[in-house]
Amino acid sequence: MVAPGALGVRHPEVDRLRRLLRRRSERSTERAFVLEGPKLLAEALDANAPIEAVFVPEGASVDLRGRDVAVRVLSRGVLERIAGTVTPQPVLAVCPRLDVPLEQIVGTTFVVVCVDLQDPGNAGTVLRSAEAAGADAVVFAGASVDPFNPKAVRASAGSLFHVPVVCEIAVDDTLGRLREAGFHRLGAAVGGTSMYEVDLTGPVALVVGNEAHGLGDEVEVDSTVAVPMVGRTESLNVGMAAAVLCFEVSRQRRGEVGEARGAR
Amino acid sequence: MVAPGALGVRHPEVDRLRRLLRRRSERSTERAFVLEGPKLLAEALDANAPIEAVFVPEGASVDLRGRDVAVRVLSRGVLERIAGTVTPQPVLAVCPRLDVPLEQIVGTTFVVVCVDLQDPGNAGTVLRSAEAAGADAVVFAGASVDPFNPKAVRASAGSLFHVPVVCEIAVDDTLGRLREAGFHRLGAAVGGTSMYEVDLTGPVALVVGNEAHGLGDEVEVDSTVAVPMVGRTESLNVGMAAAVLCFEVSRQRRGEVGEARGAR
Repeated sequence: MVAPGALGVRHPEVDRLRRLLRRRSERSTERAFVLEGPKLLAEALDANAPIEAVFVPEGASVDLRGRDVAVRVLSRGVLERIAGTVTPQPVLAVCPRLDVPLEQIVGTTFVVVCVDLQDPGNAGTVLRSAEAAGADAVVFAGASVDPFNPKAVRASAGSLFHVPVVCEIAVDDTLGRLREAGFHRLGAAVGGTSMYEVDLTGPVALVVGNEAHGLGDEVEVDSTVAVPMVGRTESLNVGMAAAVLCFEVSRQRRGEVGEARGAR
Repeated sequence: MVAPGALGVRHPEVDRLRRLLRRRSERSTERAFVLEGPKLLAEALDANAPIEAVFVPEGASVDLRGRDVAVRVLSRGVLERIAGTVTPQPVLAVCPRLDVPLEQIVGTTFVVVCVDLQDPGNAGTVLRSAEAAGADAVVFAGASVDPFNPKAVRASAGSLFHVPVVCEIAVDDTLGRLREAGFHRLGAAVGGTSMYEVDLTGPVALVVGNEAHGLGDEVEVDSTVAVPMVGRTESLNVGMAAAVLCFEVSRQRRGEVGEARGAR
């Protein structure tokens, strides 16, 4: 039996939900993405992020923290068929994409640029580190994973709502514009200069590469930087290296951080 | 058709493989664990780690890098039925457990202690960070995940073969013995003293807690330490915080690191 007004699996809104979850092209054209689970929804509400609509299964309730958001009810079994994960309190929300144009980060002093970063978990880790260390933005360039991919959204643990994100396809053009904007483009690379010997207090774009191949030779940076390691060079993955590098930027700027953030 | 000598799914050695993959108690009693995939096997061979036997499917070959290791052939379909992951070149190896008694790390100067760390991915991340930052050992205490769990082994990306591991059940006793051994026990906790204001150059045991609950009040440490963050306090997970803290220890010891490692 279907509750009156509950949406079935073939309803156009449900179909859109499914497409937004599965297809990057759809998220791109529709300028929207889906977040899954009560925890991420609470993060979105707390951050006052825009929310188009919330979807809950029949009989479920949802805490919208006083926000006026459209709630749609899904027929029994629908959510399980379209969602990427099953949570104890299943809920989905469609949100407008949050990425901003590259121009908007001109004038800031610390951005992380991912070039061909492919793992959604790593994308989430980079977003979390960037937020925690006080970066002004994260740029996903080239063949990088879509940061609004459901797995990346989950891995970001809400950081997507707190650090501005830029999505750009053309790597050369993106790095060129960052140079013009006054950023020193620092490529994270095994064999780069120790992060302790690089001045990270000026405007810096920390460029991290692909999980398997790192930064290609064709990626134009001004210099390279590395986490000096005692163990094997492969012992940190790109997400961990980005975290350590972001906090070295933050450490070198201590005292200046408050000022830099205040200028935003 | 079964190749002569190929082991079927009911063969006692196959049964043991399956039990070692699935049951912590079995890994504990048998003092052995299983590693999966050619990459980890290569890491084990490179590190000259002891290997009991290697298991490959019928018709497959395996590069043992000149090491004299028993190779057992599995009948078609057996590996898929017992392995945790399917890799393009499937191979399993049974290795003796590598954990050492706590006494063996007395006299070292930098250990990471996990208390009730439950996620195998985080266990792997902690091992990788510890290795990269030059820690002398990682202790898994209390209700922590078994670092020889197949997922933790995979997540460690070979670090298990490079950093000594200690497994202890009793948290109080472990922390007591570390204090007696002269370690300053530093609990990683939100609200702890900034890592930049803590002297990390002496013998230090960095204690990290559970993913959801952190370190309980009953966990006895000498003081607490935190990664100073710009963003929300929840923005780093325990694995990322451990990585950043391990590298702060390493940074403060730069110049002394070579000496400390040489003394092992």
